Amino acid sequence: MEQRITLVTLGAADLARAKRFYEALGWQGQEVQETVFFQAGGLGLVLWSRDKLAADCGLAPGPATGFGGIVLAHNVRSEAEVDALLAVVVRAGGTVTKPAAVNEIGFYSSAFVDPDGHAWEIAHNPGFPLAADGSLTLPDFG
Amino acid sequence: MEQRITLVTLGAADLARAKRFYEALGWQGQEVQETVFFQAGGLGLVLWSRDKLAADCGLAPGPATGFGGIVLAHNVRSEAEVDALLAVVVRAGGTVTKPAAVNEIGFYSSAFVDPDGHAWEIAHNPGFPLAADGSLTLPDFG
Repeated sequence: MEQRITLVTLGAADLARAKRFYEALGWQGQEVQETVFFQAGGLGLVLWSRDKLAADCGLAPGPATGFGGIVLAHNVRSEAEVDALLAVVVRAGGTVTKPAAVNEIGFYSSAFVDPDGHAWEIAHNPGFPLAADGSLTLPDFG
Repeated sequence: MEQRITLVTLGAADLARAKRFYEALGWQGQEVQETVFFQAGGLGLVLWSRDKLAADCGLAPGPATGFGGIVLAHNVRSEAEVDALLAVVVRAGGTVTKPAAVNEIGFYSSAFVDPDGHAWEIAHNPGFPLAADGSLTLPDFG
């Protein structure tokens, strides 16, 4: 298996609401057949009905309450950018679940959930420098 | 907010078990401070304690049962590659939740869950051609 992800699909209870939220964050995508596709670096971030997404994987959707077990991180290039982005998140209707602060690892981060409860971390981690195109090459920890 | 994801972190109940699973799929990563980092294209796929991950986002971990609401897709270049990869997944101890078949959209796909229940779709979608490096540029649906 090659080490890559092609799509990250977020289940949405209300597709229009989810689309509005990401558009309010400044994302631009395409809606086709009740699915919204956003280009996100070398992969696609997708919004789709949570029930259909579960069924498409042969799974029962279950209740959409609480932590889903996966967190998406969006790293930025300065602490000021973390604060600025959080303000955008709040205006867009996101729920900040962790105020921005230096975490126990030693970098500045915050977290929010989208209208469907999907968790994002917003962080400035100088140990994980971003390329000009925003991509990350992990450091050698050895 | 730039349209990109820096890290996708999968909460694990048993980090060693999760690491063994992804290594059995052929992934190679680095373990540092009870966290496993895999380079995945321009981002990092990370394995970390589910409880610590939730706490780091200011969320209660809750029970890790059932569908988490997010699916990662790994697209490949042929239907035969879907079948071959599924065989690797089964040998690694993954649970196939949808046998490989042509789905209602018209492409060949399958799905499995990892030992923590994180859902992956394995698909060959000729409408989403992959670049040589495995990255995806979404087609123009207009």
